[in-house]
Parts: sequence; C-alpha cells; structure tokens
Amino acid sequence: MKKGLKIATIGGGSSYTPELIEGFIKCYDELPVSEIWLVDIEEGWEKLNIVGNLAKRMIRKAGLPIDVHLTLDRRAALKDADFVTTQLRVGLLDARVKDERIPLKYGVLGQETNGPGGLFKGLRTIPVILDICKDMEELCPNAWLINFTNPAGMVTEAVLRYSNIDKVVGLCNVPIGMERAVADLLEVEHSRVRIDFAGLNHMVYGLDIYLDGVSVKDRVIEMVTNIENGSTVKNIQGISWEPEFLKALNAIPCYYHNYYYKSREAFEQIRKDAETEGTRAEVVHKLEKELFELYKDPNLDIKPPQLEKRGGAHYSDAAVRLISSIYNDKRDIQPVNTRNNGAIASIPSDSAVEISCIITKDGPKPIAMGDLPFPVRGLVQQIKSFERVAAEAAVTGDRNLAILALTINPLVASDSLAKQIVDEMINAHRKYLPQFFN
Amino acid sequence: MKKGLKIATIGGGSSYTPELIEGFIKCYDELPVSEIWLVDIEEGWEKLNIVGNLAKRMIRKAGLPIDVHLTLDRRAALKDADFVTTQLRVGLLDARVKDERIPLKYGVLGQETNGPGGLFKGLRTIPVILDICKDMEELCPNAWLINFTNPAGMVTEAVLRYSNIDKVVGLCNVPIGMERAVADLLEVEHSRVRIDFAGLNHMVYGLDIYLDGVSVKDRVIEMVTNIENGSTVKNIQGISWEPEFLKALNAIPCYYHNYYYKSREAFEQIRKDAETEGTRAEVVHKLEKELFELYKDPNLDIKPPQLEKRGGAHYSDAAVRLISSIYNDKRDIQPVNTRNNGAIASIPSDSAVEISCIITKDGPKPIAMGDLPFPVRGLVQQIKSFERVAAEAAVTGDRNLAILALTINPLVASDSLAKQIVDEMINAHRKYLPQFFN
Amino acid sequence: MKKGLKIATIGGGSSYTPELIEGFIKCYDELPVSEIWLVDIEEGWEKLNIVGNLAKRMIRKAGLPIDVHLTLDRRAALKDADFVTTQLRVGLLDARVKDERIPLKYGVLGQETNGPGGLFKGLRTIPVILDICKDMEELCPNAWLINFTNPAGMVTEAVLRYSNIDKVVGLCNVPIGMERAVADLLEVEHSRVRIDFAGLNHMVYGLDIYLDGVSVKDRVIEMVTNIENGSTVKNIQGISWEPEFLKALNAIPCYYHNYYYKSREAFEQIRKDAETEGTRAEVVHKLEKELFELYKDPNLDIKPPQLEKRGGAHYSDAAVRLISSIYNDKRDIQPVNTRNNGAIASIPSDSAVEISCIITKDGPKPIAMGDLPFPVRGLVQQIKSFERVAAEAAVTGDRNLAILALTINPLVASDSLAKQIVDEMINAHRKYLPQFFN
Amino acid sequence: MKKGLKIATIGGGSSYTPELIEGFIKCYDELPVSEIWLVDIEEGWEKLNIVGNLAKRMIRKAGLPIDVHLTLDRRAALKDADFVTTQLRVGLLDARVKDERIPLKYGVLGQETNGPGGLFKGLRTIPVILDICKDMEELCPNAWLINFTNPAGMVTEAVLRYSNIDKVVGLCNVPIGMERAVADLLEVEHSRVRIDFAGLNHMVYGLDIYLDGVSVKDRVIEMVTNIENGSTVKNIQGISWEPEFLKALNAIPCYYHNYYYKSREAFEQIRKDAETEGTRAEVVHKLEKELFELYKDPNLDIKPPQLEKRGGAHYSDAAVRLISSIYNDKRDIQPVNTRNNGAIASIPSDSAVEISCIITKDGPKPIAMGDLPFPVRGLVQQIKSFERVAAEAAVTGDRNLAILALTINPLVASDSLAKQIVDEMINAHRKYLPQFFN
Repeated sequence: MKKGLKIATIGGGSSYTPELIEGFIKCYDELPVSEIWLVDIEEGWEKLNIVGNLAKRMIRKAGLPIDVHLTLDRRAALKDADFVTTQLRVGLLDARVKDERIPLKYGVLGQETNGPGGLFKGLRTIPVILDICKDMEELCPNAWLINFTNPAGMVTEAVLRYSNIDKVVGLCNVPIGMERAVADLLEVEHSRVRIDFAGLNHMVYGLDIYLDGVSVKDRVIEMVTNIENGSTVKNIQGISWEPEFLKALNAIPCYYHNYYYKSREAFEQIRKDAETEGTRAEVVHKLEKELFELYKDPNLDIKPPQLEKRGGAHYSDAAVRLISSIYNDKRDIQPVNTRNNGAIASIPSDSAVEISCIITKDGPKPIAMGDLPFPVRGLVQQIKSFERVAAEAAVTGDRNLAILALTINPLVASDSLAKQIVDEMINAHRKYLPQFFN
Repeated sequence: MKKGLKIATIGGGSSYTPELIEGFIKCYDELPVSEIWLVDIEEGWEKLNIVGNLAKRMIRKAGLPIDVHLTLDRRAALKDADFVTTQLRVGLLDARVKDERIPLKYGVLGQETNGPGGLFKGLRTIPVILDICKDMEELCPNAWLINFTNPAGMVTEAVLRYSNIDKVVGLCNVPIGMERAVADLLEVEHSRVRIDFAGLNHMVYGLDIYLDGVSVKDRVIEMVTNIENGSTVKNIQGISWEPEFLKALNAIPCYYHNYYYKSREAFEQIRKDAETEGTRAEVVHKLEKELFELYKDPNLDIKPPQLEKRGGAHYSDAAVRLISSIYNDKRDIQPVNTRNNGAIASIPSDSAVEISCIITKDGPKPIAMGDLPFPVRGLVQQIKSFERVAAEAAVTGDRNLAILALTINPLVASDSLAKQIVDEMINAHRKYLPQFFN
Repeated sequence: MKKGLKIATIGGGSSYTPELIEGFIKCYDELPVSEIWLVDIEEGWEKLNIVGNLAKRMIRKAGLPIDVHLTLDRRAALKDADFVTTQLRVGLLDARVKDERIPLKYGVLGQETNGPGGLFKGLRTIPVILDICKDMEELCPNAWLINFTNPAGMVTEAVLRYSNIDKVVGLCNVPIGMERAVADLLEVEHSRVRIDFAGLNHMVYGLDIYLDGVSVKDRVIEMVTNIENGSTVKNIQGISWEPEFLKALNAIPCYYHNYYYKSREAFEQIRKDAETEGTRAEVVHKLEKELFELYKDPNLDIKPPQLEKRGGAHYSDAAVRLISSIYNDKRDIQPVNTRNNGAIASIPSDSAVEISCIITKDGPKPIAMGDLPFPVRGLVQQIKSFERVAAEAAVTGDRNLAILALTINPLVASDSLAKQIVDEMINAHRKYLPQFFN
Repeated sequence: MKKGLKIATIGGGSSYTPELIEGFIKCYDELPVSEIWLVDIEEGWEKLNIVGNLAKRMIRKAGLPIDVHLTLDRRAALKDADFVTTQLRVGLLDARVKDERIPLKYGVLGQETNGPGGLFKGLRTIPVILDICKDMEELCPNAWLINFTNPAGMVTEAVLRYSNIDKVVGLCNVPIGMERAVADLLEVEHSRVRIDFAGLNHMVYGLDIYLDGVSVKDRVIEMVTNIENGSTVKNIQGISWEPEFLKALNAIPCYYHNYYYKSREAFEQIRKDAETEGTRAEVVHKLEKELFELYKDPNLDIKPPQLEKRGGAHYSDAAVRLISSIYNDKRDIQPVNTRNNGAIASIPSDSAVEISCIITKDGPKPIAMGDLPFPVRGLVQQIKSFERVAAEAAVTGDRNLAILALTINPLVASDSLAKQIVDEMINAHRKYLPQFFN
C-alpha cells in the first residue's frame, strides 16, 4: 500500500525550492507527502545538491517522515508521482539576460512572459515541457502537472493543445498578490477578500472585489483614485493608474498591465534600470548567488528570509494550497490557469485562461464570468493570439510563425522589427532551439 | 406619383461632390435620380455655391433631368429623400489639422480614423450624425443613410447602437482599392477578381482572393513576397510587408494596417512628412484650395482630373454602385460597413463590421466568414472596443471614457499620455464638443 | 441595530411550511433568523392560521428567539426582509386539477412544469411574482428572492427578463434527490457524492458524477444498466432507462425526463393513475386535508412524518442550505436556477438555467460546463424556448404566444391541439388570467 | 485540352434522370456539358438501360454534342469528373417500404428524412456516399459532389464530418418550392420573390420574404391566415397552419414541419394513406413502373409530363441552376445544404445547414442570418443532434447510438420504442447494414 504522496519537482535546483519545502512542511497535516524528488540537469547538479541538502535539513528539523531525493534521472522521479511541479529554466539565467538585453537594443521591452523575452522563453521551454508530458503519460498517467514555469499561460496553452495530458494547471502568484494588496488596502484579513479574476496569465483583471461576500469594487476604486483628499493610499501593487482610466475601466488591472496601459513609462523605467542596476535577470543572478551562499551553510535549516526579495513570494502558498485543494477535494476558490470551457465568452473554449476556479480532486472548474468588460476584450484576445502562435512556433520550429507572433505582440507591433529581433534571438539561443535548425 | 429618386447629400459643399455627381450621371440609366439636394452649414455657403454650380453645369452637359438644389435647410433636403449621403466634416480641415498636430507633439500618430485624431473626429461627428438620424426618422423614415464620413466604422457603430435608424451603411474605398490593386498585380480586369473581406473599417483583411472564382491567394502572397527572383512586384498599395510575416499571416492586410504592423516606421514617416510637406490635412487644404479655384471656372462642366489626387478615388464608384445595387435589388457582392449579424464569430453580433455583403433592396446581407484567422482576432477586437468606447463617449460626453478609449488604443497605450492628449484636444475642439462642457 | 434575519414567506399557509420551519430551527446556529413572516391571501387565512400556529409551537419547543408573524399584509412582510421565499399557488389545488385534467382530455400530459399545465401555472403565477418583485424593489431592495414555486425555471426566466430584481434564485429538490439516489446506489454518505448538474429546471442532466472527487460516472451507468448479472439495482429514482440509451447518452437524465424519453409510457401511466387514484393534484388534495387535520392538533410541535409523502422532501434542506450559504458566504457547490452567464454554451447567456453553482454572499456563480452533450442540446433549447415564449405570453397576455408556446412544446407538438387546449384552459382559469381579458 | 464538362451521376438508373437531362439540355448554352456518365449497380442494369436510352434520345433530339455513357463501373465514371451527382437509393424502393411500414406498426411515422425511416436510410446510404468520397479524392479531387439523396442534411453532415471532401453541396427542392408557392400566392413571377431561408434540410424556415427586394412577410402571413374575410387563399404548399400559431411564429415553416407542428394529424393522415392507397414508397413504386413503361417507348424523346407526379419537381431546375452557378461563378442566391460557418448562431459552425447562399465557383457562401427566431431554435437543434448521432452511428455501426438517435427524435421520444424499432429495422435491412454485423 502506498504510504503517502510522491512529488516530483522538475528544476529542483532552483533557489525557490526552500519556499516549496516550507509549504509542504506547513501543510503536512492535510497533505501527507512522503517523497519529494528534486530533479535537475547535469549543469545544475551542484545547485541541486546545495538546495537539496537544505531541504533535507528543513524537513529533519520539522521532524517529518518525508524522503527527499536528489536526482538527474527525470524518469525515476516521474515514476508513480502524484504531483509533478515544474520550475525549470531552460538556458538558466544567462538565457534570460539575452531575453532582456537583445530586445532593449531595438527599443522593445524584453519581458519574460508576454514580450519577445516571453516568446523566446516559450520557444525554449515548451518542447521540454511537452517531453515531460510524454514521460508522464507513460510513467504517472494519473499525476497532476502543476506548472510554475513562465510564460505560464503560453506553456499551459501548449500542454492543452499539443499533449495528451489533461491534468495540467498553470500557477502564478500575481492574483494572490492582488488579493493580499487589496486586503492590506482595506486593512482586513486576506481570507475575507475574494476577487473574481478573469483574463490570461500576467494579463488578469479583477472583475469584482468582495469583502465578506459583498462587492466593494467601487470603494476600492474610489480609494486608489482619490488623490484629492490627500489620501496616502494611491495604488495596488505599486502602480498608480490614472483615476479617470481606472474609473472608466471599472475593473482592476494587474501589475503587468503597465506594459500595455503605461507602455512608454514602463519601457523607460526598464531601460533605465538595465543601465543602472542591470536587468531583472542580472539582479536575480546576484541575489541567487547570495542565496546559494546562505543555503550552503550546514547550520541553516529554515527558509532564509532573504529569499523573499527574490520575487515569487507566496508561490509556496499558492502551490501548496492548490495541491492540497486537489488532493483533499476542497472545492475552494483559487485563480489558476486552466481550460476556459466557456467561462470567458470571447476567448475560445479550448484555450488556457487565468480564472477563478473551484478546486476539486477532479481539478479546477472555472466560474462562468459571462465575458470580460468589452474595453479589455481586444487586448486579452491579442495576447491569447500571441500565445497560440508562439506555442505553434515552439512545436513546429517555424520561423515565420515566430515573426508573426512578435509582429502581433503590442510591445513590438512592427514586422520589420519582429524579423530583426527574431533573427538575432534565434541565433543567440540556438543551443536551446534545435527545432529551428533542422 | 414620384418621378424619380431624391438624394440628400449632407456636407454637399465638399470638394468630393463632383465625384458623386459624375457617378450619378454615369449610372443614370439604372438609377433614375431626379433631385439632388446639396446641404451645408452657414460657414460652407460659399463652397457649396461653387461646387453646386459646377454640379449643375455637369448635369446640364449630360443632358439629364436632374434638379440640383443648394440649401442650408437640412430638413427641407431630408424631406422624403430616398438616399441620404453624409460627407460632412465638423470643424472643417482646421479641426483635422489639430487632430493630426496635437498627438504628434506627444509622439503619437494623429490618425483620422483609429488613433486620437479618429477619436476626436468621432466625438465631433457622431452627435451631428445622430441628429440627422432623428430628422430622418421623422422626415424620410424609409431612406437609406449612406455614410462616407470618417471614422466610418465608429460612426456606423454609433448609428446602430444609439439611433433608431436601421437602414445605414458605412462606405469606404479601401477594399475596392485593394481589389483593384490585386487585379493590377494579376494583370486582369477588376471584375474578374473578388476578395472575401472581413474586419473593420480601415482594419479590413482579405481572407481569400479569387480570380474567376478560383482561389489565388497563395499565388498573390507568393508574388508580393517573392523578392529573391528579383521580382519588381513588391507590394499591394505601397506597403512592403515582410515576406515571413505575410506568409504566416496568410491573409492580406489593408493599407492602414501599417499603423499596427509597422507602427514605428509609420509614425516616423508621418512625423517626417508633417515637418516637410505638412500633415495630410495641410496638404489636402492646399489641394482643395486649388480645386475650388478650378471649380469656379464657369466653363468647367466635368469632374476635373486633379480631383483624383485628393484621395478618395473610387468613392463615387463605390457610393453609386452601392446605391444602385440597393435601388435595383442587384444582389451583387460589395464590401461595406454594416451589422455583423454573426458573419465574424469573434465580433459581437450587434456591432458594425466591414465585410463582403450581398447588396439587396433590403440592404447589405453579410456573408458568413466563420471567424477571422486567430492571429488577427485580438487586434480587430481591440479596435472594435476602441470604437465602442469612443461612440459611448461621444454620446455621453464622459471624459473618463474618452481617456479609456485612447488608453486601450494601440497607437497610444498609455493612460497618462491618453489623459494629456484628451485634455489638450478637448480644449482645442471645445467649440464642437458641447457634450463635454455641460 | 438589527437583531437577526427577517424571512418573508409568500404562500405561508402552504402545507410545506413546517418543512421550512424545521430547516430554520436546525440551522439556527449558523443562520440567526429573528423573524419569519408567513403571508397569505384572504382565501388562505384559515390554513395560514393552522400552519402558522404549528410553526409557533415548533419554535417554542426548540426554545429559539424567532418571532413568527401571520399576516395578509404582504407589504408589511416584505418591509426590510432579508430573504423572501415564494411557495404560492395561484388558484390553489383546484387550478392544478384543471391543469392536469383538461390536457388529458386531448391526450396530452398535463404536467405542472413543462407541459400545458406548466404553461398555465406560469401564466397565473408570473404576474403575481413580478408584482412581488416590484414591491421588493421598494421595500427590501437588498433581499434575495428564493423561489420554490413551479414552474421554477419559467418563473426565474421571467424575473430575470421582466423585473429589476437580480437577486433571484430558483430552487428545486430534483438535483439534490438525484445526488442522494446516487449516494444510496453507491452505499456512501451523500456528502461524498457530487454531480455536475446542467440543464433546466425539471430538465437537468448529471454530466459527471464524483465520489470523493473522482469520477464514477461510468461505474454508475454500468450499475444502473447491468441487468445481465441479475443486479437488483436497476434505476435512479424509479426510472429504468434502456441500457443502450443510457450508455450512448453518457449522462444521467432526471426523473422528469421520462416525459420526453419515455413519452408514451409516461402518458399512459398518468392517464391510468388519473382514472384510478386521481391526478396528482387530487392525491395531494387528500394528503393536504389529512395534514391540516394533523396540524390542527394543539399538541403537535414537530413536523409530522406524514409530510414526507407530500413530495417535495428535502426542500427544507435545499432551501435553508441555500439561504445559509448565501448569508455565510460559504462558497459551497449547489445546483440552483440562475442566470446562465455562459456556463452552458448553447443556451443564451442571459437565460435561466439549472446548474451547479458556487454559492456566495453575492449569490450563485455557475461553474462553466462548456456545453451540454450534443445529443441533448436540442431538447433543452426547445424547453428553454417554450419557457421564454410562455413568460412573454404571461407578461403580455398574448393568446397567440400561448398557442405558440404549446405548439413548440414536445408534449403537444400540434398547433390545432395547442389552440383547443389553450382556449379551453384560458377560459377555465379566466379568474386568474386577467391579462388575457383586457 | 478538355472539350467540356464531365458529369457523373451515381444512381443514374433513377426515374428522375430525364429531369436532369432536360435541365442540362435547357442550360447547354451556359453549361457546356460534353459527357454524362450514368452509373448504377448490377441490380439496376435494366432500368439504367431504359432510362439511359431515353436520355440519349432526348439529347439527340436536342442536337447537342453530349455523350451519354451507361456503366456499372463507378470508378470509370468518376475519373476526371467535374461534377458528381448522387441520386442513389440503397436497397431500392423495397427498403423504403420497410422504412415506412415498420415504424407504423409502433405508432410512429416512418419518414424518409427525419424519422426512423430517415435514420435507416441514412445508415444504409452514408457508408456508400463516404466510399464515393474516397474514390473522388483519388479520381476527381477537384470535382463538386452535388447530393440529392435523402436524408440530404444527414448525408451532408456525414460528408463534412467524416470525409476529406470539402466540395459538397446537399440539394433539396423544398425551398425552391416554397418560393414558387409564395410567388403564386402573390400572383407574381418567381424571380421577383426571394426568401431568406435558414434551418436544416426538410426543416427549413422562411425568415423573411421579399418581393422585388421589399419585405412582404407580414402581408404573406396575413394572406395565409386571413380566414375571416372568406379568403380562398389558405395555405402554402397545402398546409393550413393555425393563424394564431403562424402569426406568433412570424416565420414560414416548410411542408415537412407538419410532422412536428401537426404531429398527430400528420401521423393519422399517413397511417390512413398507408391503409388505403399504400405508403409513399408503394405509390411511387407503381408510378415508377408506369414511368419505366413509358421510358421504354423508343419514340419517346422528351421528359414525359407524367414524371411531375413523381414528386421532386423542380429538382432539375435546382440541380442544374446550382451547377451552372458554380461553373459560371454567378454569385446568385440559392438555398442549399452546406457548412454553417456561423450563419446561424445557435447551430455549431462546422455543421451542415440549409441556408440561402451566394453560389460562387468556390462553392456556396452562406448569408449570415444572425440566429433563428428563438421559438424554433430548440427543434432545429434537436434534429441537428439527431442527424449527428445518426451519422456517427452510420460510420461506427454502434447500435446504442442508433437507439439514442431515435430516442431523441421527436417523432419517437421513447427509449423503449426506439430500441424495439431499431432492432426490428436493423434486422430487416441487415443486407445493407454490414457495419452493424461485425
């Protein structure tokens, strides 16, 4: 008889792993994990050992009967797994630096989800994920694939469209962060706030906001736009939207919407940051180095607080909360990336969306939202089109499709620029894009 | 008994009027027009007289029993009209200069249909058109409203949504120009070519191209993208799309798509033109001055060839072809702006689209196209959203909606910029925007 | 400050009321009701007193601080109510006898929801419900309307379409009965079973069945169709579907589907019953008489077990469970009648459907089901069409629409028959159908 | 070089063939047919010769250079054909007699399109048609398949869903007959009348009626329902709909709607006819015998007028009109069975519908009708569901699906009856249903 749950974490050498381990420790009472397999590739062996040993120390300290396995053998890890989590990064941070630096030369945001950076991260990642899916079909056909890897929307779309794995959920910490930010704004417990989320990954809107089940959307919009009376509350998650815009929109954009609704300001900020402190990948690179130095300390047996600065806070919350709700058939509401199924009328029923769902043992069931407010339908559909064309390019290795994907992306919006960027980036990443070099 | 058709042309003092008159003369055999009422406003009285007298001379020369009336009394013109054509320009070319110049200061295209220029042209024009509709309900409830006034898509949307006039068609010469360009490319008669058009005004795509009823889309795309063999044929209507983009798109964009698929290049060109030869409105202003000098010549009794340079070539063809097909229940295929009715699945059924239609006495009946290719659905929906928000702003005078409209417009894509541009432009056009100053 | 919840029960003299009272007593800990107003009309005063006094005795026995008010003043009852429940019967059981007897003469089922009986019950009931809605707008605009009155789907459709009350839920005990029947079949606790319900009132399908979150639909279908091995388990809720039909359908019909999938057998059974034991209304009439005799007993202070035979078992469960989930923002899953909102693709988004929903303080949020299996889409749409035409007939008093409604109803399927039945029934019910006699 | 068009007519020995030949003769000027291959099976060799020789005499008399080939070699006939017409009858009229007689025993209409008869005709016919499609892919991949064989809607659905042939059109004479009947009613030329048709084969509605392009629907409905003033005009095509029903429906049903909107009357009529003059197949059998006696006459060289009684009048008109419009890229409007493509919103985009189309060389392009009036959407979707389940049963030989198809058919509406009928009919037709006996 099976003694407990087996978790396989692909990209186990990630600096995030202590987050996840902490999550499993906290939730052990309701989620009886017995094995965690941290998998990585040859190049990641050293990091896997550092972070894996920390994981073992954390679990030992918690006094829990969870075995942690460190391995390069992905198939052994997948064998009979109950949940597979993916947090891999093809090409490591070096590739991300290119994703960010190359577009900047062309005056374009090199964003790791929806822009050219996202396109190329998708082109590198999707074939690997689809390969994992094939292994899963064989080795753990009943397992759930919980994907954290960005671009999470594009990856979920690709799995739904090009693999036989139905049990896939894409996960992001943006919505949960929005709910927490609103709770802070209202000065109430997070659990009392619920947002109706609908859209795509990194393009999700809060359609309505409830406090104890009663809509407070108008009040929240009033609070974040009321600058006349000297209110110090000015924003959700650091973005100061123009009050007129927000009131007319009558929905809450997410942090990443600044690339589309503050396109020039966002570009300027990121260009300036790149010139001063470095791109995000470069900053993260430094942070990770420091983190791994900490992780090496054989006396460290907790998640070090410095990890929070790494970004991705609440990922452990989100991930373990999701896994536990599936395992326990909790039927609670969580925003995840899943098959639309008609929940958003203007997005095709078979496409991935990010949406508030009931989480059951049978997976997420999206809440029917009717449709997005019409002022935002176009942009959301545009990014969905970008994701679909990009996913098809990733699978086929068709350079024309990659150029089309960038041309229709609002951050580029030029076929000539798209062509130049694609050509330079395909070349820069050629090691990880074999499908384009057949 | 009625002796023939009565046409009321609002904005009759336009320099285009001789085009229209020539059209009616050419088609007289199948379209028995007996009265043409050219209406204009006080400020246009002089121009109305100049162009109106030319119209009278043209008809006299043709020897046709058509009465031309020049009037400032719109209601008298509308009374019992069979067709009402609108070619008015609220604020005249001076307003258009502002539509173009102000956005340029902010680094944004001041385009007269889909950009900030289009927004403000819509805000000025829609209330006037809706006022005409109210008069039509009373004075000529069975008449057809044939609108040439830009932004034609936004105006048609507004009439469908905010008036009781169902018999409205928006007309543009872009699709017919594309068909002619393809016919030239193929070196065949225009009548042998048919394009399946679908999209919006100034955002229409050729989904397929037929020569004598047989698809030649692949051949046309091959011709316009084949640069390797030194082909001199490189474009349709002056745009050289990147071959990779066009092949992956597998549809034919229109001229105005360069604002979205060559956004930077288009902006640079227009900025440069504005600095050298002046904006389009300034160029047109000069052209019109020259035209009116010609029109004054009492010996001139034909449409002067110089009018062709004015742009809007084929408008008379398009307009009179449409009116004649309605009047004669011709059931031929023409691309016009009308209620979608499900012809394009991803656009709401009750929205205006530009689409190939069968033209019957009962009006245009759109051909069911299934859906737009998914790579373009998002952009089209985005501009549709822009048009709808803009139309609502025009009717309500809600400044927040005007700011939202510009923010979601891909040519602006910034709420702060949108706010600045809207505020400067509302002020610049305040005379024509009473709805914003209540 | 408000001390507790106020419930207004229209049709409070119903024999069901003890069910409801028992429900409120059981749930008092989580649902602090302080006032229950039982409203009825003049003719119901005696029954209201009998059942109302029993209600008072039940509450006294439970020792709870709930005030029970008996009144003919509907407006006083509605004033500041938190929940309004409707269990009224316009024309009482006498009218139902006519609803059943008249169609039988024409060889047609006189069914109280979807057939001619349902049509006429709707025609009598909808104007009264819409009148209550108008009062609610004025007197308790924040209250929820929980409608138990049949035809519940048609009534919900009418409220959504013809009133300003958005906070309406239609409730039926059929789905909960199906879940219980499946739990019994599987020999497990009801709480471990969950069915994905989708369809219309009295036309709902179980699209999937979960035991502890894992699909057991195939197993259930196997169990109910496996007659070869002498299984004694042959049906869900008394209907033995043909195994071939059920396997091909691959979904679970509800009890009332026998009118459509066993139309002749169902008619014969009901005709025979009418001849022997009387129609359902006649049987119920006798049961009610007996019940009211029991209710009169001043020593009775519990719900008498004989009430269960009355039908409508679990209504109290369903109703109080729903009210408590709304009040407590429980976010649990319950099948109710609400606005579709895209949850079932082939039913218009603005129509009422019966569907599994998350119940929040903001009301039910339907789970996006994609679409109904295509073999059943037509029938469901047909009954939806019947409900919509019937609701329009109820509001307008248009006899032609009533005839159309019956003609398109599959139980009638004849325009001549429809006309005869409508004419006889309009006349028979003329007292309660003033809208048809203006 | 090709000298003219090659037509292959499968089921060439049909008594209808002279109709078709007459059509080709009349249209020769615009449709230069050079070869007509009449194909039949072994059992039909004698009839093929009789009718084929008549065809040769007709063409000789017309003095046209058309070669008529009589053959049992289907592949030779298909080789390089331009148009393939199918008018085959698997199992001949004997099978149709069973289709009609067996259901009657169960009190069910044995209708040759939408009822049990239609199901079994479909089960026999679809595999043969799909086999022809496979041959066409190989032998004449550019040919159009023009199917007259009933059930035409189900066959078209099957070809669209289960073959690689896109160039398929299903043809029926019902709509053209409705237009003629309306023209007669209005006492005008047929060409001046146009009906907007939408629905399915033998379930098509006239959504609007135009005389010279102007809607006269209200007038037509008034004419056919005005019985008060002693009008002698009482019906379209022999059906007297109840005035109340027709006015509320506000659309024109077709002849076959009497099976659904006069279900009992229609059944009684057909049962009575079967008892007196015999079923339709039996009547036709006699007519055909007489026709073939006439056809044998070596002096006969025209279509004999007696053929008109056979039913299917105007088929030649319809068929040749369609072929000519395709060949000549006429772009005229004709009602045919084709892929919906969004023209009717509530029917799936990829399903076959019968709808007014523009006929181009590229095939029929449906006119976007928005949606069917909501009172009829359900019935149409129900028959579409029946057609789809039936087509799947035909392809898979799944008896459960055949039983499901009949159960959801409104003419049966009973799973037990469906099972009995299916079992008896599968057995009766076993020779032609090999897919059910593997």
